[in-house]
Amino acid sequence: MRLEEMLSTHPRQPQMGVSEISAFIRTCFDCADACLTCADACLNEEQVQRLVRCIRLNQDCADICEITGKMLSRQTEPDKATVRAQLEVCIAACRACAAECDQHAQMHAHCRICADACRECEQACVQMLERFPSRAALI
Amino acid sequence: MRLEEMLSTHPRQPQMGVSEISAFIRTCFDCADACLTCADACLNEEQVQRLVRCIRLNQDCADICEITGKMLSRQTEPDKATVRAQLEVCIAACRACAAECDQHAQMHAHCRICADACRECEQACVQMLERFPSRAALI
Amino acid sequence: MRLEEMLSTHPRQPQMGVSEISAFIRTCFDCADACLTCADACLNEEQVQRLVRCIRLNQDCADICEITGKMLSRQTEPDKATVRAQLEVCIAACRACAAECDQHAQMHAHCRICADACRECEQACVQMLERFPSRAALI
Amino acid sequence: MRLEEMLSTHPRQPQMGVSEISAFIRTCFDCADACLTCADACLNEEQVQRLVRCIRLNQDCADICEITGKMLSRQTEPDKATVRAQLEVCIAACRACAAECDQHAQMHAHCRICADACRECEQACVQMLERFPSRAALI
Repeated sequence: MRLEEMLSTHPRQPQMGVSEISAFIRTCFDCADACLTCADACLNEEQVQRLVRCIRLNQDCADICEITGKMLSRQTEPDKATVRAQLEVCIAACRACAAECDQHAQMHAHCRICADACRECEQACVQMLERFPSRAALI
Repeated sequence: MRLEEMLSTHPRQPQMGVSEISAFIRTCFDCADACLTCADACLNEEQVQRLVRCIRLNQDCADICEITGKMLSRQTEPDKATVRAQLEVCIAACRACAAECDQHAQMHAHCRICADACRECEQACVQMLERFPSRAALI
Repeated sequence: MRLEEMLSTHPRQPQMGVSEISAFIRTCFDCADACLTCADACLNEEQVQRLVRCIRLNQDCADICEITGKMLSRQTEPDKATVRAQLEVCIAACRACAAECDQHAQMHAHCRICADACRECEQACVQMLERFPSRAALI
Repeated sequence: MRLEEMLSTHPRQPQMGVSEISAFIRTCFDCADACLTCADACLNEEQVQRLVRCIRLNQDCADICEITGKMLSRQTEPDKATVRAQLEVCIAACRACAAECDQHAQMHAHCRICADACRECEQACVQMLERFPSRAALI
């Protein structure tokens, strides 16, 4: 609720509803922390060797989702091409991480939960991308 | 709730209750995003020159709270002296940022809300610090 | 030189030459810090109101270049689609930031230097992208 | 050299020599990347289970050194207590990481090199701390 309050009192009002953008930002940060925690959990599993790729993709996905959340938190004149490309890398990272986590989901509940977080974030980015049509799409 | 689920399924169980540690981590990330958004809001105020110090302290506080949240998300063998020192810098950053935001709170609602977020995070860090007694304090 | 040493002793050898990948990573981090410092410098200029968009693009570009440097520092099994998309967002961010900085380059030397850093990083990403051909390009 | 140029053209001149502060910032970022790369290298070692604590301390140290570098890059009115506390947590993180890396230095060259980077950064922070005397020390 604080995020909604912050955005409601921002001198530049978001281009979309405050609750919509707040929900999006929270989804990004939730996914970032799920990925960071999944990497840390994997590191403590007995079969950590099998989870090396999972840890790596968790780390990338955590980093990327965090930046997506930060970029959408800023309401100052964005560069649309950069926002668009950030949403696209976020979709790629979430897809790769979810696909890898899925392979360990039966063994490790944290991988199953993390895969859900990634898919939720991917879906949120796909929807947000529709608000940033590419130049080509405008023709 | 996802954070609670992630920590509940982590092979290393947190040293404190899952809901307690989850609430702490969320407080850190909420403060980080409040500070990032306050900096961005300040940048768009007409009297931005008066808010330069506020923006700077917002940036430091955002960076520091984010790292505190990440460190407490990791359950793998922590170094207690480092965690303690991180909680201490987080308290310092939250105090400095809240004090500066307070001075603009009547003019700018985002500064008022951000000061609240900082005080809440400061308080959470003070309480968490009690769980990491220094060697000196143990004598 | 330490980065070269670190990568030379990594159990997974980089897919390209150690000096080449090290130079790339350094270019990313140099651009990230140039952007962070440019944002901070702009904040202290008398005409900060005219530099608000510059500060915002500096912040995005700093965040994005930092993640690109981190991702290429990791040698553990990368997801090529994610690396590719990260290089693409890095190009977009560097272009947008350089174009904005260029408009202030005559007034502010830090904007001129930052624009150079962005163009150098953009160019490095364009070259690196050639090493990660897209699936479509392979057909 | 670009960092020196950026700081030389900043409207607020650093409180110390430009080459001194630039060297400090670079030391922080070099240590951050050494730690990130050491964590990634450890993850690929056969005896990764023995390196779990090393990876965790690498991650903390990477995060903390990065923030130290960013904070000292910003020349806008700093809060001295916060800078001081950040230097202190950076010293703690570098010490803990160097001590752990030392234990693996004979087996893994990347741990040896990373321990050197941590000690160099620790030493730089100890020296920088002398420039930020505590209130108590001023009495």
